Parts: sequence; structure tokens; C-alpha cells
Amino acid sequence: TPLRTLATRPALSIGGIYPPIATPFTDKEEVDYGKLHENLQKYCSFPFSGFVVQGSNGEYAYLTREERLEVVRRVRQAVPKEKLIMAGSGCESTQATIEMTVEMARSGADVVLVVTPSYYRGKMTSSALVHHYTKVADHSPVPVVLYSVPANTGLDLPVDAVVTLSQHPNIIGLKDSGGDITRIGLIIHKTKHLGFQVLSGSAGFLLAGYSVGAVGGVCALANVLGAQVCELEKLCLNGRWQEAKELQHRLIEPNSAVTRKFGIPGLKQAMDWFGFNGGKCRSPLLPLTEQEIKELRHIFTVNGWLSS
Amino acid sequence: TPLRTLATRPALSIGGIYPPIATPFTDKEEVDYGKLHENLQKYCSFPFSGFVVQGSNGEYAYLTREERLEVVRRVRQAVPKEKLIMAGSGCESTQATIEMTVEMARSGADVVLVVTPSYYRGKMTSSALVHHYTKVADHSPVPVVLYSVPANTGLDLPVDAVVTLSQHPNIIGLKDSGGDITRIGLIIHKTKHLGFQVLSGSAGFLLAGYSVGAVGGVCALANVLGAQVCELEKLCLNGRWQEAKELQHRLIEPNSAVTRKFGIPGLKQAMDWFGFNGGKCRSPLLPLTEQEIKELRHIFTVNGWLSS
Amino acid sequence: TPLRTLATRPALSIGGIYPPIATPFTDKEEVDYGKLHENLQKYCSFPFSGFVVQGSNGEYAYLTREERLEVVRRVRQAVPKEKLIMAGSGCESTQATIEMTVEMARSGADVVLVVTPSYYRGKMTSSALVHHYTKVADHSPVPVVLYSVPANTGLDLPVDAVVTLSQHPNIIGLKDSGGDITRIGLIIHKTKHLGFQVLSGSAGFLLAGYSVGAVGGVCALANVLGAQVCELEKLCLNGRWQEAKELQHRLIEPNSAVTRKFGIPGLKQAMDWFGFNGGKCRSPLLPLTEQEIKELRHIFTVNGWLSS
Amino acid sequence: TPLRTLATRPALSIGGIYPPIATPFTDKEEVDYGKLHENLQKYCSFPFSGFVVQGSNGEYAYLTREERLEVVRRVRQAVPKEKLIMAGSGCESTQATIEMTVEMARSGADVVLVVTPSYYRGKMTSSALVHHYTKVADHSPVPVVLYSVPANTGLDLPVDAVVTLSQHPNIIGLKDSGGDITRIGLIIHKTKHLGFQVLSGSAGFLLAGYSVGAVGGVCALANVLGAQVCELEKLCLNGRWQEAKELQHRLIEPNSAVTRKFGIPGLKQAMDWFGFNGGKCRSPLLPLTEQEIKELRHIFTVNGWLSS
Repeated sequence: TPLRTLATRPALSIGGIYPPIATPFTDKEEVDYGKLHENLQKYCSFPFSGFVVQGSNGEYAYLTREERLEVVRRVRQAVPKEKLIMAGSGCESTQATIEMTVEMARSGADVVLVVTPSYYRGKMTSSALVHHYTKVADHSPVPVVLYSVPANTGLDLPVDAVVTLSQHPNIIGLKDSGGDITRIGLIIHKTKHLGFQVLSGSAGFLLAGYSVGAVGGVCALANVLGAQVCELEKLCLNGRWQEAKELQHRLIEPNSAVTRKFGIPGLKQAMDWFGFNGGKCRSPLLPLTEQEIKELRHIFTVNGWLSS
Repeated sequence: TPLRTLATRPALSIGGIYPPIATPFTDKEEVDYGKLHENLQKYCSFPFSGFVVQGSNGEYAYLTREERLEVVRRVRQAVPKEKLIMAGSGCESTQATIEMTVEMARSGADVVLVVTPSYYRGKMTSSALVHHYTKVADHSPVPVVLYSVPANTGLDLPVDAVVTLSQHPNIIGLKDSGGDITRIGLIIHKTKHLGFQVLSGSAGFLLAGYSVGAVGGVCALANVLGAQVCELEKLCLNGRWQEAKELQHRLIEPNSAVTRKFGIPGLKQAMDWFGFNGGKCRSPLLPLTEQEIKELRHIFTVNGWLSS
Repeated sequence: TPLRTLATRPALSIGGIYPPIATPFTDKEEVDYGKLHENLQKYCSFPFSGFVVQGSNGEYAYLTREERLEVVRRVRQAVPKEKLIMAGSGCESTQATIEMTVEMARSGADVVLVVTPSYYRGKMTSSALVHHYTKVADHSPVPVVLYSVPANTGLDLPVDAVVTLSQHPNIIGLKDSGGDITRIGLIIHKTKHLGFQVLSGSAGFLLAGYSVGAVGGVCALANVLGAQVCELEKLCLNGRWQEAKELQHRLIEPNSAVTRKFGIPGLKQAMDWFGFNGGKCRSPLLPLTEQEIKELRHIFTVNGWLSS
Repeated sequence: TPLRTLATRPALSIGGIYPPIATPFTDKEEVDYGKLHENLQKYCSFPFSGFVVQGSNGEYAYLTREERLEVVRRVRQAVPKEKLIMAGSGCESTQATIEMTVEMARSGADVVLVVTPSYYRGKMTSSALVHHYTKVADHSPVPVVLYSVPANTGLDLPVDAVVTLSQHPNIIGLKDSGGDITRIGLIIHKTKHLGFQVLSGSAGFLLAGYSVGAVGGVCALANVLGAQVCELEKLCLNGRWQEAKELQHRLIEPNSAVTRKFGIPGLKQAMDWFGFNGGKCRSPLLPLTEQEIKELRHIFTVNGWLSS
């Protein structure tokens, strides 16, 4: 491979808040593009930097290749140019990921977000992952953001792999959803001289992420409490840490509820409460039970986001 | 759902040994159907009950939908009718799994092997999995075998889910690759009155599996040492436990080497040594390093299967 | 260290079944030596090879140094000479383990069972463990049995460490409670030429253990169903595998119930039902709830060991 | 139990930085009280709030009961009254923990730090742990700080148990060494109205801890870079987050090196380099290899703390 010059690193900034948008379905579990459009119209009133389309919360694992691309196209049409579209193009094989990446870019993605392949996780060593991402970035028409989400993949993209990959001129950042703040701080420390940008992958550690140098966050909770997550961003950027702390505290439990605890069914239920189109998930994800809905509501209530 | 009558349970026996066949690729990483055919010709000289097509060792996660079906078609053409074809049809969504299942049956599969969906593993509760498999079995034209492979999925199909599903007339068995022999014994104990059949998912615990009531095995190592794995089966079935033990002992390390330790690249390297077409894997799986090849060879040598 | 000659390996056989005896307490949580004596009297009617005193089920972690020794003394006095006493002498530091080992031998232990130190598990490498056990075995007046119990220690004694240690003339065997039958088979394969003896650490995989070459078992369940566990041993030794399988199947759930599922409080509750002195545990182990007691009883009932 | 009134909560503040001091040993692995004294003399020049005696880094698991107490006595004598002594008094049984707690208080501890019992971790439910800590706190003559260190115990003290225990008037805080900043933020959110105090258990997430409301830190690295860790504290308390971030970044790798990566042998090696008495560990902890020493030195060097 030829020597790459860092002078070619794109100046694209990915700082700010992104909701990893949910994919609404009809009762027959078909993608409901109308409801998606309505959600996006509402989201455009918040100061989001853009949208993550087909992060884990988008149920991308349940969409066909064609649906994945069509969703990106629709989002591109629905939102203003200045809203950055970061599209999840990760597949298990390198070749499929490259193809999906190219198609995503054609469909309107400004950036691709590439999850670690993980089915053969025992062999997904640093070398294998560096090889994979290098190939993808070499062929991608748009900048690449690495995506580590161990809760879903059982795999943490190793720090040394991230550091190596940060030198690739077409790899501009990392979305880290693991939440290990020590690791996040270390990655920022070892890559900041290259302008590498790290996004916190959850609202639960958004403040802590900013405190160690993250430039923003991809937050499931922003699908529900978009204004509040953006407010937390603003407090952090303006150094109002005391207020930020108060707000962060009130977001942790709701955030855990719509991610780890109740998953996408919980996220969509909460979206319904806050005026967005959540609705049901694709099977095999089950809707919440009555008891779970009560618990979820309680969590939003005790933190002051809903009345009981 | 209507009451299902167990009288409808198909009499299909899945006892015996199955290699989960590897998928050969050309240098350009395209499926090499010619080499696949050659392997199958050779395998037909062993007393296998049939073939698992697109188990984890088939790199199914790296194949397109079309390739997955074409491989099943080619295998069906290449092997005699009496060899049972068990085809991996699992996908992440229930709907995609049903479609793939139907297509696999059309393409010649006698049985489908359905891996647990796992990307949203935090929500893959017993209820969700029972719901998923019930739907798939309801729509499958051929019998269904459950497939639990925690090393790849991070998820063990819960015992209570297996017991519930064993009552479905179109779910005839389980391939358990986790290797927890206590669990395997318990599942057999709780389902044997229904004629439910359990296959050990690895040659490493094939003898132990038989000792607690498994009816056979799906063994990566059978791609390499097919005669020996079938010999072990015969010793177990004939109650020659002492000889079985001796043989089992010599198969453990080679088996671990071509699975956990060196993965599919190790399996394919060993296939090359024993006269089959192994070759390289699809990216991101890397070939073995020189050092790894030496270690692999050493393991086959010290156990008496290769000269040094 | 001088070259050790294997000719010095003691001929001591540790084959057979051992209950890892529970420690009865008074209402004030003091060791109840009277009740312990009663249990031992009853146990002596079963064909146990001996007794494990202060395995994990003996709540040894909750006993003082003096209590640990006194319990061994009392057991030695209560049971006939020919019953082998295997006493748990493991401590965190090498020095403390050596001292406890020497004292245990003085107190009547025929063999010591030495659990892996585990508090600093991140540094308990193969080298550290080989060093530890070598020192202990060098100083022990009686033969040493290694003890790997990952459910409690979070640490599996690595196979390579076991193989190295099997060459020490004063290390005669391993109690493996992890239940990975592939690992157990491999260890036996790699150490049998030295006469190294492996004991299954649970009744849940006792049959499977025998099938791959284990010489016996240390089974919590033998505190409750001693005759049945010994019967299973006999069936295995006599090659009556079909009957063995039937019996094994009915012991798995009760065994899991008194180990993994309900722990020592469950074991002691079941002991009470079968005429032994179980009673309460030392704090912080809590007694079972009413609901747990019901579930436990149900498990013994559906497997035919208690009437409902 | 009687209703406890929160009015009785002691006003004791535990804010600030504490080194969890190492225990020096002689060549014969005996506690070297002289070298301990020398270390303390040097440490007293740093603005530490006090000292943690027999946290995990003190090799407490390798000390006898008598040594544990004697070390506390010596530390009490060596340091000024205003330096708070937080002594680790956790044992596996509740009774032993109470006794050790009482003795620690008699020996000069201002506060006890009580690690979660963990040997029977499968049964260490929230109820069991709440019961355990309540009993200990009821009997402790000095305030109790909870201690959760999953890397050593395999057990995270559950959030709901912490919240319940925070209501006990004699339980004043938590040392959390797990490093999950979302969890730490949540615990602070749910207990701050009671004046409950949380300490970060590592220098790796000290800044992030302060950002979400922790009051200080117990940092192994403070044994080596005491001034720098205290400087980081000051920057955080004074709201100089940008400088804090720069300093935090440079402390992450050295901190990981003396904890997770190289453990106590690494910590002691680094202490030697910085003018303190580190020396060797008790067996089974092995000294670093030459290669490990090089790596350790490299880590301190590239972060600017040592010249190469």
C-alpha cells in the first residue's frame, strides 16, 4: 500500500448530537416510510448535527439490503443538506461491507458507520480488523467512522487497532458504545494529534465523554428527549459543568431503560409517549409486557420527564 | 395457535455423523463450486449420515443469499439421495429466516438448521426465541433443527425454550455446540419422551454426548478426519467404550485446533493436508501465520494423525 | 530444584465417590460438631471412598483457621481408617497454603485438595500457578490434589499448568468442577501415562467424566443421595452404560439445584429432607425463601426422589 | 431493626485523594515495617486526604489477621492525625468481617472499607449483600465505606443494594473500582440527597468521576505519581477542565500499567523507580519479567513521566 498522506484527511467535523433513528414498521412489519418522515420532520426542530441511520437502534440487522438503502435515501430527502447523514454500512464480510458502503454513499450518506464484524469473533483479532477496515476505507467514497458496540457484537474494537486505523486518511472517527470511559480517554489521548474524533455511543456517559475529549454523541435517548440531550451538549461545550451534571444525572436511568434494560421495544414505547412514531419492532423482538411498560413509565416519571 | 398433535411428528431420524462442510473459494474469494464438488465426491466414501451445509464452518455469514442457496443446490446434486442435507437457514429476523427456510427446502434441503438470532441478544429471551422458532417451524416445509452455538452468538438457547420447542411437531432436534455436557444430558432427559434428537456440535465431546444419549454429531473435524470420526461413532454405538475413549482422546486437540484455536482458517489448512480442498477464507478471516501453521501441524502430529 | 523421579509417585488411589461434606452450624452460627458426627455416622453406610472436608460446599471460606483444622480432626476420629480424608487446604498466599497443608496433614488428612488462589486472578498466570503448586507440593507431607472451581474462583486452572504439575511426584490428581468435558478428556489424555487421576467435581457430569477416563467424583449431591451417586459409579465401572444413563439423567436437575441454582442453602435444605443434618449456613449466605424451597422440592419430586 | 434516623449520619467527609498503599516485604516475604514507614514519611509531603490501608493493592488477601492489624497500627503511628485512615476490613463471613472491623477501629482506622464477600458469588444477591453490610455497619465503631472491585471479586455490588445501604447512618460512601461511569453517575444521582459519598477506585477515570459528582479517588497510581494525581484533583475542583483533561490523558496508561496490565508487581516496580520502597510481592504473585519491566518503563516514558 502506498504511503498515505495525512494532508488528505477530510476536514469533515462530526461533532455534536445524533439520534440513531429508529425504523418504524407497519402492523405487517413493513418499513413505514410515512411515519419515518414524520419523525424526521419533528427531529429537524432540534439542533442535532445529523442522523445516524442504521445504527443498532435502527434494527438494521432485520432489514434487507434494499430496505437499508431505501431508508437512507428517504432520510436524505427528508432532512436539510446541512444535517449530516451517518449511515451504518457494516456487514460480516469485507466485500459485502465495501459494496454496502459504496451504495450507502450513492444513496446520500455523508459518512458511513462501520460496525465490527463479529460472527467469527474468536478470529476477529486486531490484525483481521485492521485489514477489514483498511480495505473498506480504501474503497469508500465517503469518510468512515469505526463502530464498537460490544453489547451487541461481543467484541470491543481493540485500542491498538483503533490507533492504527486512526492514521488512515479516510477513517475520521469512532463511535464507542461500550461506555468504558478509561478506554475512551485513552483512545482520544493517542489519536488526537491526528484529528481523530470520538463520539460517545450513549447518553449515559455523554458528560463524561465530553470531559475526556469526545466531540459528541450518538444517543438512542435523543430519539425521545432530543432537546434535553442537545441541552446537555451545550452545557458541556460552555463549561457549565455543574448544571450539566444535574441534567446528566436525570438522563441516565431513562437512557438505560431505552437501551440495555428494555432495548428497542422500550425505545419505541417511549417515543410514542413523547409524540414520535415508535410502534412495534420486527420479530423476533417482542413488544414490552404490561409490567415492563409500567416500569419504563416509572423511570421517566421519577426522573421528572413524564407525569405519572 | 391450534393444538398440535405429536402424532404428526415426522419419523425422520437425524442420527449419525455430519461434517459441517467448508465453502472453498477461488483466489478472488468467489465460491469455487468445482472444488466443493471434489470435496463432496471424496466425502461420499465415508459413512456420513449426511452433510450440514452452512453451519458456522461454512462461512455462511459471509455468503450472499443467492450463494447460500446455490451451494445447497450444488450439494444436493453432488451427493446421493440417501445422504441427508441439513441446511443452515437462520437469519436475524423471523421473516428473513422463514423466507430462507422455504428457499432452502426448495433448493434441496431435507432439514433446516436454524441458528439463534443474536444481534440484539439482550432481548433474545426464552419467550422471544420460542416465538421466533415457532413461527419458523410453522412455515417450514421441512423439519427444523435448533442450533445453539454460543461461541459465535454469545447466546445459549435456554433449556426451558428447548423443552417448549421440542413439543412442536416440526422441530425434531437440536445441534448443541456449547459443549456443556450437563446441559446436554438435561435436555435429552426432558425431551426424550417426544423423540427429540440431540446432536453434539463438535468432535471434542462426541463420546460424552453419546454417553448421555445424543444421537450423533456435527463435527468440523469430520471435514479432515472423516473416517476416524465415523469410527468413533461406531465404537460408541457398539458399546466399545474403552476403545472409544482412546480414539476420543486423540481427537480432542486436533478438533480444538480446527475450531476454537485456529478457526476456519485452521480447518481449511488441515483439509489441504488430508487431500481435500480447503484453501483460503473470505475476508476478514485471515490465513494462518507460518507460526500458527507449525503449531497446527504439531497438534496433528503428536496425536498421531500426521508424520512430522 | 532436583530432578524428581516419577518412581516416587505414591501409589495412593483416589478413585471413587466423595461427598464434599457440609458443615452444620448451631443457631448461633457456631460449628455444630455433634451434628457433623451424626452425618458422618450415616454416611459411613454408603460405599464412599472417603470424604472431602472443606471443599467449597463445606463453607470453608467462612471458617477460621482453627475451625478448619478442628473439623478435619473430628472427621478423622469419626470415620474408619480406610475412608480417605481429602482436606481443602488452599489459601490465597503460598505461605499460608503450605502452613495449612502441613497442619491438615497433622490433623488427619490423607490428601490435601488445594484450590487455585484467585483474588488477584489477573496475575494468576500458568507460571504463577505452577510456582504456587510446586512449592506447596514440595512441602506437603501428603499427596496433593489440584482443585479448579471456576464458578467460585473465576479462574480455570489452565490445561498446560495441569500437565506441567502432573509431573510432580507429590501431585496425584485434579478435582475439576468446571464441567467442560472436552477439557477434562484432554487433561486425562495428556497425563494418564503418569498415573495422574482426575475426579469430576459434580454429579451432573459424573457419567460423562467416567466415559472419558475420570476415576471418580466429588459430588455435592452425594451429601443427599449418597446411595444413588454410588450406584451410578458402579454402573459406570461395570459398563452398564444404558442404566447409567437413565440414572444420570435423573440426577442432573437435583444436582444443579443443590449447587448452581440454590447453592449451599439448597444443599442443606435437601439434606434435612433426606435425614441428614443440614440446617442453616453462616452469614452472608441466606436461607432459601419459601418459594425457593418449593422449587427445590419440586425438582426432587419430578425426578422421582421425593413424593410431593 | 429499629428505624434509623439520618440525623445521626456522621459528618465525616471522605473527599480527596488516597493512595491504597502497598505493603513492602523483606526478601523472606515478611512485612517490612521499616520500609513501610519510609514510604509514609514521603507520602506525607503530598496533599493526600489520607491512606487506604489494605485495599486490594495492599496484598491484604496475603496477610494474616495479625499482620493486617499491625500494619494499620503502624500507619496510624506514622502519619498525622488529620490524615484519614481507611482500613480494609472485609472478610468472607459476616462474623469475621465484624470482628476485623472492630479490631481495625481499635488499631486506629477512622473508617473501614469493606469489600464484597465473593467466594459464593452465585448467592451474593442484593438481599444477601444488604444483610451482610447492614450487620457490619450496625456493629462498626467507625463509619463504613462499601467497596466494589469486580476485577478481583467477579462481583459488582448492585446499584439497588448500594441505594438501600446508603440509608444506613453508619454507611457513608462507596469506593467503586469497576470504572463504569454510567453506573457511578447513577449511584450518585440516587444517593446524593443523603450525603452519600462516592470515590473513584482508580486514577484512570478520576476526571470523569469528578465530572459526575464523585468526591475523590482511591488511586493505585498515587503510590507512584502522588503529586500528579493530587494536581488532577485540584484542577477538577477548580473547574480547570481543559488542563485536567490534558493531565488525565497522560495518567491513563501508567495507571492501567500498574493495575490491570501488570498488577501489584508492576505497581511496586514503578514505586522503586520513583523513590519509594516497592520491592517484591508475596507468592504466588511473581515479579515482572525483564520484558514486562521494559514495557512498563516504556509506558511511563512515552507519557512523559520518566526519561528513557
